[in-house]
Amino acid sequence: MYRTHTCGELRLSHINHEVTLAGWVQRIRDLGAMTFIDLRDRYGITQLVADGTLPEDVLNSIRSLGREYVVQVKGTVRERSNKNKNIPTGDIEILVSSVKVLNASVVPPFTIQDDTDGGDELRMKYRYLDLRRPSVRQNLELRHKMAQEVRRYFDEQGFLEVETPVLMKSTPEGARDFVVPSRLNPGTFYALPQSPQTFKQILMVAGFDRYFQIVKCFRDEDLRADRQPEFTQIDCEMSFVEQEDILNTFEGMLKHLFKKIKGVDFDKPFLRMTFEDAMNNYGNDKPDLRFDMKIHELTNLVKGKGFSIFDQAAYIGGICANGAADYSRKQIDELTEWVKRPQIGAKGLIYIRFGADGIKSSIDKFFNTEELAKIGEVFGAKTGDMVFVLVGDKKKTLGQLSELRLEMGTRLGLRDKDTFVPLWVIDFPLFEWDEETKRFYAMHHPFTSPKPEDIAIFESDPGKVRANAYDCVVNGVELGGGSIRIHDQELQQRMFKVLGFTKEQAEYQFGFIMNAFTYGAPPHGGIAFGFDRLVSMFAGLDSIRDTIAFPKNNSGRDMMIDSPSIISDEQLKELNIKVALKE
Amino acid sequence: MYRTHTCGELRLSHINHEVTLAGWVQRIRDLGAMTFIDLRDRYGITQLVADGTLPEDVLNSIRSLGREYVVQVKGTVRERSNKNKNIPTGDIEILVSSVKVLNASVVPPFTIQDDTDGGDELRMKYRYLDLRRPSVRQNLELRHKMAQEVRRYFDEQGFLEVETPVLMKSTPEGARDFVVPSRLNPGTFYALPQSPQTFKQILMVAGFDRYFQIVKCFRDEDLRADRQPEFTQIDCEMSFVEQEDILNTFEGMLKHLFKKIKGVDFDKPFLRMTFEDAMNNYGNDKPDLRFDMKIHELTNLVKGKGFSIFDQAAYIGGICANGAADYSRKQIDELTEWVKRPQIGAKGLIYIRFGADGIKSSIDKFFNTEELAKIGEVFGAKTGDMVFVLVGDKKKTLGQLSELRLEMGTRLGLRDKDTFVPLWVIDFPLFEWDEETKRFYAMHHPFTSPKPEDIAIFESDPGKVRANAYDCVVNGVELGGGSIRIHDQELQQRMFKVLGFTKEQAEYQFGFIMNAFTYGAPPHGGIAFGFDRLVSMFAGLDSIRDTIAFPKNNSGRDMMIDSPSIISDEQLKELNIKVALKE
Repeated sequence: MYRTHTCGELRLSHINHEVTLAGWVQRIRDLGAMTFIDLRDRYGITQLVADGTLPEDVLNSIRSLGREYVVQVKGTVRERSNKNKNIPTGDIEILVSSVKVLNASVVPPFTIQDDTDGGDELRMKYRYLDLRRPSVRQNLELRHKMAQEVRRYFDEQGFLEVETPVLMKSTPEGARDFVVPSRLNPGTFYALPQSPQTFKQILMVAGFDRYFQIVKCFRDEDLRADRQPEFTQIDCEMSFVEQEDILNTFEGMLKHLFKKIKGVDFDKPFLRMTFEDAMNNYGNDKPDLRFDMKIHELTNLVKGKGFSIFDQAAYIGGICANGAADYSRKQIDELTEWVKRPQIGAKGLIYIRFGADGIKSSIDKFFNTEELAKIGEVFGAKTGDMVFVLVGDKKKTLGQLSELRLEMGTRLGLRDKDTFVPLWVIDFPLFEWDEETKRFYAMHHPFTSPKPEDIAIFESDPGKVRANAYDCVVNGVELGGGSIRIHDQELQQRMFKVLGFTKEQAEYQFGFIMNAFTYGAPPHGGIAFGFDRLVSMFAGLDSIRDTIAFPKNNSGRDMMIDSPSIISDEQLKELNIKVALKE
Repeated sequence: MYRTHTCGELRLSHINHEVTLAGWVQRIRDLGAMTFIDLRDRYGITQLVADGTLPEDVLNSIRSLGREYVVQVKGTVRERSNKNKNIPTGDIEILVSSVKVLNASVVPPFTIQDDTDGGDELRMKYRYLDLRRPSVRQNLELRHKMAQEVRRYFDEQGFLEVETPVLMKSTPEGARDFVVPSRLNPGTFYALPQSPQTFKQILMVAGFDRYFQIVKCFRDEDLRADRQPEFTQIDCEMSFVEQEDILNTFEGMLKHLFKKIKGVDFDKPFLRMTFEDAMNNYGNDKPDLRFDMKIHELTNLVKGKGFSIFDQAAYIGGICANGAADYSRKQIDELTEWVKRPQIGAKGLIYIRFGADGIKSSIDKFFNTEELAKIGEVFGAKTGDMVFVLVGDKKKTLGQLSELRLEMGTRLGLRDKDTFVPLWVIDFPLFEWDEETKRFYAMHHPFTSPKPEDIAIFESDPGKVRANAYDCVVNGVELGGGSIRIHDQELQQRMFKVLGFTKEQAEYQFGFIMNAFTYGAPPHGGIAFGFDRLVSMFAGLDSIRDTIAFPKNNSGRDMMIDSPSIISDEQLKELNIKVALKE
């Protein structure tokens, strides 16, 4: 061992102990007679003091030091005269007796501290330096803790962690697969799993009863801001359960994590909301319930008053922003521009201000005070509130109102990062109609079970059939989702029929798992949580990227190791493939 | 929930309880007036009894059942008249009141029991049925437990679990990489990691201090009997440590596992043996120390007695098999054929029998009794022992003696699966000379540190330089290995020079990590354990395959999902590659 203690360990109780520390030079202050050095490791920072009475060779060593040098220091712990209350070791310092340089460092391209001067690209290229910054390291320490607690919970609940293959098989449905050419089987390819969905259902057929895994998954998507080509999932499946059992088990996992990691106790069950209610009241299947501000429909109330925009609209709805009545003309104009941006896509914004001086609105021409008050009643608007109204196609307008609601929540400070409101969204539709291809698609996947009470309308009104599918939403973020699976073969055939599969197509795409299901598949269901996102929520981050040690950039590149890269002609030849760039 | 209890849970204390069980039909015995059914799930087997007085519809349900049907059963727990001491639920049975078939099963292609009638290929194709067999399931339960205990140990020791990328970069040294074409970066490829070696060293540069991960690794090798293209590693690295710290830490992990999983206490430190001693005394760098039977060199003792085979040999050595003096002529002939097989490659086998009737040998013509007794003394041979001697090139003969020693150990019953003798093999050579390319190669990898006391002969006698490298060996199986890494750049340059790299070649192949090392790399070292092999040793298996839920066969194929497979032309086009089969 190069040290007797870490840089985060020493306290007043160690006064007069002879210690050896090792770490990185964070900061040097040469005051002539004395030199102060902050020595850093994963565990903290300890102040070193070297006075001018040290032997010349030690002083020379100290003079040679630069930022990020790695040193081993021997000395005596003593009480500091000016204590630093901001760090746990702030009561003590080390009076240095000897210094050994273990390794030098060239000058780092950015400062190794939370408020670094390094830009994004530079930090990714030198990720090993970026990871030295306490805030980045703490995110990964949190991730470690969460992973251990997740496993502890599942282990206690009788789940088995089973590793499923990474070298899998490409499937035609779903997102794009990453593929791996097989040298031993020329002309064929493995695929990296988008999720272990098939394997976890197979494990249920195999009688494993309760399975979990914290597992890497892969999607070759065009990367958006917060997507990674490889991401990590908490993947779970259970047998002989109904939806209620699954919700309780995984609510238990989240409660365990919130308690162990954040010290937050949820003594009540999580809220539950149907997909339909979520869409109608929040315009969104993952509502942020840290604040109310429900959407209310006004269509019937406000039509036929001679205001053509309303009269021609399929849907009219609004939200009430409590305490926003003091919004200035300028602020309203700015908000109007905001909803008209292409990302939101509203045509305009109507407001009704419930001010101390009375009700004022942008539709005063068509609605008198009494009528505006009636609209206010729908929202329970009080003096000081502001109602915003949007109109248009129902689905689109609800989406716009959802965005506006979230924006007003943020502006009004209603979305505190340390408040957590978990929610189960249930009763998702089983099918989604696609206008373009004029067919139904499985909203979740083709093995999702319908609600038993909706099986009667399975063929007659597929769009109305609800699924035994559920999402876990916290603060407007979908953390996980899953479903009860179909284990009845006859029902599965009906499902394929509604999805427009011929028997042959179903056989071709799903033959292997359908075959497995003929050997006694138990009733089963499961869920998967996005682990990166879960960590990012617990860390209070906006992006998943800083919960990942070595993330890729938006082009799927690892800037640090400079990958992907070209490979040799020999390798290509061995793999029986050629590069064929498009012209 | 479809059940109130599992099939492994009910005991005499549950007598008269109304219970609901769910599981698979293992066996049905229809005795006319009574039907007995063994119901199975992951947790055990419970006997059900249905008597003829049940309503007709229940009886019909029972008559419809077949092997592997999934059923839900309600009934009352009662004491069995003829108890089954072989299963934990053997004191009770369930008097059935109702039966619900949850799913039917076609007849499985082999019997679902430990001594199945299913051949290897069939069981791999229907792995979901194979996994229902208790012995296979238990291996995976063991794997689960071991994974949890490994993580618990490292967590307690302050290690952080960090996920390293699966989409990495191809490196020209080492085994063949699996590669993944990048669609977003046409013409370039990711590679799957053969190990996270680079990333774990980078994590040390990043100051993570103690890292571990249970991680999938990939090697595109021609598959041998007990190799898998994807395998799992316990991967670890530590900073500010010397070899001694690493050995102690990971010895601690193994002791923890042996205690928690096998109930075996190792109160003494593991044995340590230098590579040189292992090779000279056991002909092998991973000796099985469950039995002694050391190899002794006889070269000087037996040369010059007129026996030309000895006189012309570069090396003469033997082992003494205690209690094998009663080997018959036939057995010796058979053993002689055994050592002459191409896999062993000896020219012949010389024996000296220390029988009750005196010393007899196959070299009686050249050696008198006194001389034979002298040879016996080298081995400490007693009456009843048999000495076997092989001759030839030193390295090859030691290897043959090692094989013979292991074979005799097996034949004499000295290799008990429930006895564990762990060992650290240390002081490996840093370099290996390759006759073909006439250059030195790094035995471990080019970042392995030499022993400080051997640095003086680094250039003058590279073949003699020993490394700070170590292997963990249990019962003749290498479970893990690692090294202290070079953190000094000057030493690293000397290493590359001995390996015959030009500065440019070193830069091209290792530039990225060499660059990272210029920013203050701490002294560090690590180790990796083969997790599949570790589990297989704990399970008493000869192969790693049954410790893996979904293994691949010797051609790298997953027989169950029929992968790898061809992919569509569209996929190939999107990925900018073409299949180019050799003529």
